Amino acid sequence: MTSVDLLFLPPPDDAAPAAGDGPPATHPDVTPDFAFGDLAASPETTRKLALALGGVQHQFHITPLRPTSTAPVTVSATTGPAFPAVAAWLYYTTDGSRPVGHGGQATAGQAVPMVWRETRWADLLWDYLSVWEAAIPPQPAGTVVRYAIEALAQPGSGLVAGWADASVEGPGGGEPVFAYLVDAPVAPDWVRDAIIYHIYLDRFDPGPGNTWRSVERDWDVMGGTLAGVTARLDYIAALGVDTLWLSPIFPSPTYHRYDAGDLFQVDPALGTNADLRTLVQAAHARGMRVLLDLAANHISSEHPFFQAAQADQASPYHDWFTWQQWPDKYTMFFTALGLPRLNNEHPAARAHMLAAVLFWLNEYDVDGYRLDYVLGPSHDFWTAYYRAVKRSKPDSFSVAEATHGAAVLRSYEGRMDGALDFTFLTMIRGLIAFGTTTLSAFDRYLEQSARFFTPGFVLPTFLDNHDMNRFLWVAKGDTRKLKLAAAIQFTLAAPPIIYYGTEVGIRQGGDVRENGWGRDVEARGPMLWGADQDADLVAYYQRLGAIRHAHPAIRHGHRRLLHLDNAAGTYAYAQTAPGALGLIGLFNLSAEPRALTVTLPVGINAPMTSTDLLNGCVVTPTDDGLTAALPPFGAALVEIG
Amino acid sequence: MTSVDLLFLPPPDDAAPAAGDGPPATHPDVTPDFAFGDLAASPETTRKLALALGGVQHQFHITPLRPTSTAPVTVSATTGPAFPAVAAWLYYTTDGSRPVGHGGQATAGQAVPMVWRETRWADLLWDYLSVWEAAIPPQPAGTVVRYAIEALAQPGSGLVAGWADASVEGPGGGEPVFAYLVDAPVAPDWVRDAIIYHIYLDRFDPGPGNTWRSVERDWDVMGGTLAGVTARLDYIAALGVDTLWLSPIFPSPTYHRYDAGDLFQVDPALGTNADLRTLVQAAHARGMRVLLDLAANHISSEHPFFQAAQADQASPYHDWFTWQQWPDKYTMFFTALGLPRLNNEHPAARAHMLAAVLFWLNEYDVDGYRLDYVLGPSHDFWTAYYRAVKRSKPDSFSVAEATHGAAVLRSYEGRMDGALDFTFLTMIRGLIAFGTTTLSAFDRYLEQSARFFTPGFVLPTFLDNHDMNRFLWVAKGDTRKLKLAAAIQFTLAAPPIIYYGTEVGIRQGGDVRENGWGRDVEARGPMLWGADQDADLVAYYQRLGAIRHAHPAIRHGHRRLLHLDNAAGTYAYAQTAPGALGLIGLFNLSAEPRALTVTLPVGINAPMTSTDLLNGCVVTPTDDGLTAALPPFGAALVEIG
Repeated sequence: MTSVDLLFLPPPDDAAPAAGDGPPATHPDVTPDFAFGDLAASPETTRKLALALGGVQHQFHITPLRPTSTAPVTVSATTGPAFPAVAAWLYYTTDGSRPVGHGGQATAGQAVPMVWRETRWADLLWDYLSVWEAAIPPQPAGTVVRYAIEALAQPGSGLVAGWADASVEGPGGGEPVFAYLVDAPVAPDWVRDAIIYHIYLDRFDPGPGNTWRSVERDWDVMGGTLAGVTARLDYIAALGVDTLWLSPIFPSPTYHRYDAGDLFQVDPALGTNADLRTLVQAAHARGMRVLLDLAANHISSEHPFFQAAQADQASPYHDWFTWQQWPDKYTMFFTALGLPRLNNEHPAARAHMLAAVLFWLNEYDVDGYRLDYVLGPSHDFWTAYYRAVKRSKPDSFSVAEATHGAAVLRSYEGRMDGALDFTFLTMIRGLIAFGTTTLSAFDRYLEQSARFFTPGFVLPTFLDNHDMNRFLWVAKGDTRKLKLAAAIQFTLAAPPIIYYGTEVGIRQGGDVRENGWGRDVEARGPMLWGADQDADLVAYYQRLGAIRHAHPAIRHGHRRLLHLDNAAGTYAYAQTAPGALGLIGLFNLSAEPRALTVTLPVGINAPMTSTDLLNGCVVTPTDDGLTAALPPFGAALVEIG
Repeated sequence: MTSVDLLFLPPPDDAAPAAGDGPPATHPDVTPDFAFGDLAASPETTRKLALALGGVQHQFHITPLRPTSTAPVTVSATTGPAFPAVAAWLYYTTDGSRPVGHGGQATAGQAVPMVWRETRWADLLWDYLSVWEAAIPPQPAGTVVRYAIEALAQPGSGLVAGWADASVEGPGGGEPVFAYLVDAPVAPDWVRDAIIYHIYLDRFDPGPGNTWRSVERDWDVMGGTLAGVTARLDYIAALGVDTLWLSPIFPSPTYHRYDAGDLFQVDPALGTNADLRTLVQAAHARGMRVLLDLAANHISSEHPFFQAAQADQASPYHDWFTWQQWPDKYTMFFTALGLPRLNNEHPAARAHMLAAVLFWLNEYDVDGYRLDYVLGPSHDFWTAYYRAVKRSKPDSFSVAEATHGAAVLRSYEGRMDGALDFTFLTMIRGLIAFGTTTLSAFDRYLEQSARFFTPGFVLPTFLDNHDMNRFLWVAKGDTRKLKLAAAIQFTLAAPPIIYYGTEVGIRQGGDVRENGWGRDVEARGPMLWGADQDADLVAYYQRLGAIRHAHPAIRHGHRRLLHLDNAAGTYAYAQTAPGALGLIGLFNLSAEPRALTVTLPVGINAPMTSTDLLNGCVVTPTDDGLTAALPPFGAALVEIG
């Protein structure tokens, strides 16, 4: 067998399950995954990569990744054939001011010539890349170093400037500023132990005494409230969840509320600011934390500041936005007219945004943020954001949403506590729902990802979210596959996120892609309560949460592969930590029952029981390990000493 | 102006020239360049790159690029998601034998575990790459170190081997062997001073007293002979040419003769072995050298060894070829049934090929080889080849034909004296014929290429060859553009190649792509002689040759950019060397006359004359430089002290 054979391994067996135990006999078509950004290396992505590579790129390449007060920081940039640079300069400040320079002369801060370091060949461009480098001396802990990179070309008689990572749409024109925080903190400890529940507020619970509004269109407001969440804390806590992530709370003309009309108010449709305080206090009383969801990139076109800026060119808010042609053409979130992009490079706009961030942290005692579309605002903004929240509330958690690859995600180290793991998402869906990822590739991904990021950066995992088909949909309704995916998710170190309703078996009415953009409402159906829930599935999730909490080795230990067989679809690993109860996870990805025999290597103790904590599968000790009888798409979790 | 603007600079002005001085009023369509291999980053190329990157890749990544006897050699490999490696091993020998090993056990040579060094994110794969490394200790000068790289994955109960750079079509199965030569020589000095003339033998001259045969099809043998070349040596020498590159001389059923029927004979249609000796001796008498053209990758299906192998499975020649299903399915050059691939990994086949190589070098005193399709045989083969020819004739020249990118070309350092510069080809045609390359990008390419390769590796330049549209065709018949391109080509350091007939203005009857593959005959039309030649063009090439020979600073000095203006289409550089006559080249790529004023920087002397050696343009000294009046698409060459 050669590497070529491996490449074309057939997907896991997907024979029809026994009646009553599997997916519906027929299921509508499921489209491959997609997302806002660049979730796959499509020809379009490749074209964009090549286009960017042709110009001046920094892409936050600094060494070390997390600057300290004891070593210089090497900043590197590349220039391609579309910008044939003859020189490059780095401008930086350490006093918090914006660096300003041109042609090697700094008018604010220092100018450092970048040195040509290397010539690389880039197949994607069919041409060379020049690599330039400059060093910034060590700075005291807590310093924010802000910098910009200017390459110079001479296409005619004069020098032309090209700014690294400049984009036509970029805020503040063509001179992006980057930044890093010296000795930046890492994620707080509690995050590693968290189980997160992702609530789409309009669709969760209308609150005591209320019922869902009847709506004309799927995307009308249905009436979920904060009080509704408070009323369901017992239900949520029973899942083992200790952290809530609330979708945006701000007044908004839409049901999703990612377009804030006021960053300091709760949308009256959700309740009052006091309702939020009540929810946070009730959660804290149960030992639960609350994360808000913040879009710093854009606000609503109905926000008074945008209205003022659009009504009057002399408005103080005019420069909070980027106008191609005032008053009708402005930079927005992709092409959404209702979501004008906030120019966070403008000092007052930035101050306003950061004031809102601190307001909810300090006045309402929320525990952090899930940051929407972090790719929009600059790394300079996020560095300022992170410094502000960590000074104000060191124990808070900030997690980035970026749909780009791991290299981009890693660039948020030192600017965020972590990032949502979209690569895990594509891998686990590829492995179990689409059958496009082999077990070998999946396990390799886990290993590599752990090596790629620093241990201080947290990558919460999820099976689905509000922007894509639910897992159960792509699994064609087969609950066994959802359970299997969740068992793997909950026995890996990263904090798992449950998207509301996935744990009760919400089913979609159709594919999110069927009818274009608006159909992501399919993934945002109203929560099921009471008898509408799949009680077996809920109980399963409760067991998963309990097992995870009872076994800190999952979160703080060492994962060790015990067994992997692509053809048989069987997989097992151990999670162990010194002095803590360990766990062995055994998984059957095939549509056939499998007897999975595992030999335990030196250093991994024999099971303490022969009980499968999760599903009660029959587990039999052997001389040097154990055998588990796993049903199709089944999993077993066995405790070890 | 930002990098984005630069990206979309309009191509050079291409207004209609004055009557009688430009291209024909109308010209048939010209297709973009293409070639056998991967001359552009097409979606297909990108797909192939991603496919290869997913598996186990070595791609000849060793450090240093040219191993010496004093330092260890670091060998690196990458593994991707299609081959989720858990370990990797390097097997090597230093005694010339083939390394053999599996699973970390060497049965011939040494086994060295490769160490996981780094995890990288690959956007192209949307997954991680693992980087593995191992070191080979220093070896005495002249040692050939042969090695293979095995990655191990565990997709099921057993380990599976994946060999680096294994390909389904690879010779010898799935275990490619690589090699390097310690303290490998570099190109001989004479090559740097060479002007090379590329003769397509069947189409050059039928010889004294003979005429072209009348042919039914364009690809029938027209009757060029070696005696015809000998008879034209005066003509060739007058161009300043000192090196002949003859297309293949071996007996063959085709007119191109890249399919040899006997590696030790001259095709009777070309003459006799004695005719070759006469030609070489006559050339040497004039101080000219002679290169043969050798396809080591494949031979003719009419070669007796292939015939024997196909007739009898017990034939000693059976294993000289790779059979998918004997006798009809075998590995060939792409899909050419007439060109079975020779398995140069087979010791006897390799010995036969190397014996032929040495035969012509030693018995007929030829001066080297142009090696066809070097991508076919392994680097191990080419290392053995290079060691053999350099031991036998240190002053010989071996130049590779590979249509891949610069990273692949560079991998032939230490195995070849140089490689044909296909990147220069695409750049100069993009710059002057297609208008798709800016002057900035072109100049940047020259700078970067000089940095990318070691000075010991020679990259001969060419404007066209037998596998593509002639330059004059893609320039839509505009001789001014051909002259301009040749002026740049002849004033750069790399040895220029003239493809026979380009210097006399051979015109094509149609586009090489018009009618599929066979139409490359359009670029292989019979040489024009006497009054059929464009005498002005020939005289121009003669001047270029003479100027190049008279100014060693071009070949051995330092190129310095003096002027570049994308919008005006004007360009100038100086070639200088201590103690030698220098040269300033001034170029007008626009369709308008231009007065080009150049200020000479410190270190570059004022012109010795105000004469343009090439075209007699008016050159006027200024206080600190000179001004040249250049006609549309004109060039001037001015001598400096």
